[in-house]
Amino acid sequence: MKLQLAIDELSLEQALIQVDKLKQYIDIVEIGTPFLIDAGRKAVEQMKRKFPELEILCDAKIMDAGAYEAQLAYDAGADYVTVLGITDDLTIKGCVEQAKKQGRKVMVDMICVKDFATRIPALEELGVDVIAVHTGADQQQAGRTPIEDLIEMKKYVKKAQIAVAGGINSKTVEDYMALQPDIVIVGSGILNAVDPVHEVELVHRLLTD
Amino acid sequence: MKLQLAIDELSLEQALIQVDKLKQYIDIVEIGTPFLIDAGRKAVEQMKRKFPELEILCDAKIMDAGAYEAQLAYDAGADYVTVLGITDDLTIKGCVEQAKKQGRKVMVDMICVKDFATRIPALEELGVDVIAVHTGADQQQAGRTPIEDLIEMKKYVKKAQIAVAGGINSKTVEDYMALQPDIVIVGSGILNAVDPVHEVELVHRLLTD
Repeated sequence: MKLQLAIDELSLEQALIQVDKLKQYIDIVEIGTPFLIDAGRKAVEQMKRKFPELEILCDAKIMDAGAYEAQLAYDAGADYVTVLGITDDLTIKGCVEQAKKQGRKVMVDMICVKDFATRIPALEELGVDVIAVHTGADQQQAGRTPIEDLIEMKKYVKKAQIAVAGGINSKTVEDYMALQPDIVIVGSGILNAVDPVHEVELVHRLLTD
Repeated sequence: MKLQLAIDELSLEQALIQVDKLKQYIDIVEIGTPFLIDAGRKAVEQMKRKFPELEILCDAKIMDAGAYEAQLAYDAGADYVTVLGITDDLTIKGCVEQAKKQGRKVMVDMICVKDFATRIPALEELGVDVIAVHTGADQQQAGRTPIEDLIEMKKYVKKAQIAVAGGINSKTVEDYMALQPDIVIVGSGILNAVDPVHEVELVHRLLTD
């Protein structure tokens, strides 16, 4: 089970310092969407250059121009790029073709996708690598968690890897582990903790025990 | 009728040079999604600083964390930010609240929204400023244009402004003008023309005649 650290609200400088402190406990560094709006592809480039031993995910949430935008992310050094599950099949196809060309991966963000029973088989048919259950920040504010969606998604995923994101921390991570996702995504649960190193260590220990 | 120049595939340096040549013919400069992935908010900042007389749109295609991501764009100097019409109402509400706080505008990108009859009234109720018909680059490749969607959308929009985007150029712009949108968005139609200044002049003349 991999641990993905999602960075959303740090500057590039702060992010590089934090990842340096936390790197031994994480597998994937996520350049989150607001972080990408803030710093652009430079964030992916510098993170990959400084931490070549970690995988980098560019959370571009691609909605159009799949091949072109995926290429931008992969050329900057991203191992994974995200595409929105709600978008057109042509866009997802463009991302997958680009990923295969470059030997990288596509993660589908299922935020706002309602019909898992028909969408998940279609996404697997398109050849995506990872399907991510994601309860967005705005939905979390309204009290939702990704646990029910993860249970529901498990029914339909046959071959893709499964990731889960949405307000997970050391107190809740075991609820998710019971459902055996391949990637657990934690952001503010670690980065906004009083002691991020202690928190990441806790999460990491739970994931690897 | 305003003309919005969408910049998707230029570097920041190239974009600043092009806008300098084309500025007298355009009203809004769009920092397109791939351009934003490439350069980050610096693209919005530098464009606004160099061309304070033009409006700047940040095509962030917000899907989550509405207030936070809109604030990033507005703080960088954007007059408009885009949010996806397909996303959660809570996210759109966050963008609108941030826009009102800062005296800026929200444009909704209707890409992949299927049910205009129910979605458009809901978006107007949420207080968005502009609703944009958008046939994505991947759908254009498959032969679609935004004209039918614009006709359909006109039936439901009561108070928001209307924008239209998707492969428009000087040869096709009059078809759109007949439907009286408030903002016409042209990107590669101008920037990939043999003579972009001539092309933008043509489009501008048609729009203002």
